[in-house]
Amino acid sequence: MKIYQVAILGFGVVGSGVYRIIKENHDDLKHREGVHLHTKRVLVRSLKPQYFDVAPEELFTTNFYNILNDDDVSIVIECMGGVEPARTFILKALKAGKTVVTSNKEVISKHWYEFEKIAKQSGAGLYYEATVGGGIPILRTVTDSMQANNISRVLGVINGTTNYILTKMAEEGKTYEETLIEAQKLGYAEADPTADVEGYDATYKLSILASMAFHAHLPVPTIYREGITGLSAMDFQTAKQLGYTIKLLAIGKKQGNSIEVRVHPTMISKDHPLCGARGVFNAVFLTGSAVDDIMLYGRGAGAMPTASAVVSDVIYACHRDGRHRYMTFVNHEQMSDQIELVSNFSSGYCLRILVTDSTGVLSKITQVFAQHNVSLSTVLQTQATDGEASIVMVTHGAMEMDMKAAVEGIKVLDCVKSVLSVIRVEE
Amino acid sequence: MKIYQVAILGFGVVGSGVYRIIKENHDDLKHREGVHLHTKRVLVRSLKPQYFDVAPEELFTTNFYNILNDDDVSIVIECMGGVEPARTFILKALKAGKTVVTSNKEVISKHWYEFEKIAKQSGAGLYYEATVGGGIPILRTVTDSMQANNISRVLGVINGTTNYILTKMAEEGKTYEETLIEAQKLGYAEADPTADVEGYDATYKLSILASMAFHAHLPVPTIYREGITGLSAMDFQTAKQLGYTIKLLAIGKKQGNSIEVRVHPTMISKDHPLCGARGVFNAVFLTGSAVDDIMLYGRGAGAMPTASAVVSDVIYACHRDGRHRYMTFVNHEQMSDQIELVSNFSSGYCLRILVTDSTGVLSKITQVFAQHNVSLSTVLQTQATDGEASIVMVTHGAMEMDMKAAVEGIKVLDCVKSVLSVIRVEE
Repeated sequence: MKIYQVAILGFGVVGSGVYRIIKENHDDLKHREGVHLHTKRVLVRSLKPQYFDVAPEELFTTNFYNILNDDDVSIVIECMGGVEPARTFILKALKAGKTVVTSNKEVISKHWYEFEKIAKQSGAGLYYEATVGGGIPILRTVTDSMQANNISRVLGVINGTTNYILTKMAEEGKTYEETLIEAQKLGYAEADPTADVEGYDATYKLSILASMAFHAHLPVPTIYREGITGLSAMDFQTAKQLGYTIKLLAIGKKQGNSIEVRVHPTMISKDHPLCGARGVFNAVFLTGSAVDDIMLYGRGAGAMPTASAVVSDVIYACHRDGRHRYMTFVNHEQMSDQIELVSNFSSGYCLRILVTDSTGVLSKITQVFAQHNVSLSTVLQTQATDGEASIVMVTHGAMEMDMKAAVEGIKVLDCVKSVLSVIRVEE
Repeated sequence: MKIYQVAILGFGVVGSGVYRIIKENHDDLKHREGVHLHTKRVLVRSLKPQYFDVAPEELFTTNFYNILNDDDVSIVIECMGGVEPARTFILKALKAGKTVVTSNKEVISKHWYEFEKIAKQSGAGLYYEATVGGGIPILRTVTDSMQANNISRVLGVINGTTNYILTKMAEEGKTYEETLIEAQKLGYAEADPTADVEGYDATYKLSILASMAFHAHLPVPTIYREGITGLSAMDFQTAKQLGYTIKLLAIGKKQGNSIEVRVHPTMISKDHPLCGARGVFNAVFLTGSAVDDIMLYGRGAGAMPTASAVVSDVIYACHRDGRHRYMTFVNHEQMSDQIELVSNFSSGYCLRILVTDSTGVLSKITQVFAQHNVSLSTVLQTQATDGEASIVMVTHGAMEMDMKAAVEGIKVLDCVKSVLSVIRVEE
């Protein structure tokens, strides 16, 4: 049985999890999978004594070239995160014909095409299941189980931090600020939560997921992005009243050659299977031409779930040894006319509008909607207090541009004090 | 590019769906997957003119040997269902070195080991993703994405007919009989619904799923089975009151070398992700040592979802050409002492008991429970009418044998008119 010598770059949460799984499951993997794995090297920034409690001292190196120049090492597992030096190390490893497995969503979403090109040239494998949805085998499902499908829709709850916050806000009626502090205390949110709460992390993941689902390279800048910081407790009350809940959804849709990709807070029916993803759990809902709707649910982060996906890639790569496959994007390096990116997408919308308590208000507002081709499915009006009332309106599918124009038109109406919130609705 | 010539056995719902997908996706599969598929032969029992609207007449044959003896045909797709002649055809094809892809859960669950042995000898591939959960890629997830895990639990809603009936009973308060008739009208239940409603179909699927998850061959007769025909509208009201819903769950658990496998109506929390599987949808919930909980959801039956899984297997088999892998069961052909089958499993239970409205009833019943080591977590008592009252009791985890003994002990109490229902509860 061939021994696969691997090197792990980074010994943080994921890297040390990978080391543990490879060590603890060594015999099982040999017996069940016919794969003999051995960790030969671990790259760290600096040698810390606590590492040696986990793995023998001689494994560790601070010099990447001790790994790159070691011909025994055929698989490099990158768990450092961030763009540099991860990008350089991955490129060098691939060029040297070493297979790369990574959990680094940022570097893959930003340098994927470059990596694929080099890997193809050298015949090395490139695997990144752990970059989307942590332990959820979503990418393998797309590549190995949905080949007979044209995928038309991807809906993902793919950021655990925001899903934790939104679940608490929905179920306990707390404010965004309170819940964020709680999430930070529990280690679910960073001290600077921007990457998560503003939706950047979700755009990295959607870029990878939608590119694979639609066979078209969709770099991060093509994704429309809106974070969750503007959501109020009142938005959740409104959602509940309407039978919805609010999730930060990563949405990808493809119709013919038109693709739309976006990340924003979204109302979905409380009966939607995605609502089963509560707290830090993630879920991805896909619609395929043959299989119809399927969903995958699981832990989107954490040492062992992420390491589970990484090791699964490593074993998969061993089985594919010498026969790795690469992504086929219909639009290659740049967006070509084969794919049209849609920014003026269609969606339902839920608006909360603060109005003066006077007659004819509803008629004036609906008139503006009608002028912009927006039709309404539901209107709720709360009891007026102090001469003010709030109106909740849910639209049928409308074009984003039309909706924006309608909101501007409504804002300038005399009877309208303010448009309190506009949240998209996905059926 | 190598052309893979396939033959389809059976041209019913699944077989014709497979034919359509291979034909309609021919160019996409060539471009994206590098796989050139061509259907060379279709085996049917008798030639029917309507077939020729779908595929050219010269494709069809009523003689299996026209396929077996055709050296061009390297992949045989079996979509006939039932044990014979499917078993014989699969064995002959495998012996001849032809890869077999099947959607036939009954023949796989009953003759799997025999098939694997022959396939290993001849080097042919054997694939059966469509046998469990229709279009849901559950088996591939176990083999290709959870390799780094020891799976300790499998919970499956894997029969669409019963799930449709139970969803209607739960959501619309209908009786079993009403709902069954509705399901039959819609084509979701057969004229003779026994295989579905008595849980046989679910045992075939659980046999395959649990065997793969636990790396131990668990034939159908090892599975405890109970159907849904005894459930009443009152059971669903009780479940609702307790925050549960009732599903026909296929349950597999492994702890050390002990394995339990069972199919029966089960109460689960209404917040459990499995409750997202409503109507004919299926879902499988797995717990792995590294990945923790994951769930897959989708259509468990139907022409195109099932054909999607079949074609996915065909493409996967092409990529594995000459390098097929086989199941490794720790217990090989027979149950050995490496695996202990547990029939006296532990579970929660929900009981409804009809009692006389007299003092001391509760104390007498709880005393019997205590004698049999069963402790209670919840007790609800309804208002008495006509000298009768009904009591609902939910237990903590108790042993099945203890519970059975306790129920017998309760039945003979003077104050107990009858034990109306006993339903297991899964946390």
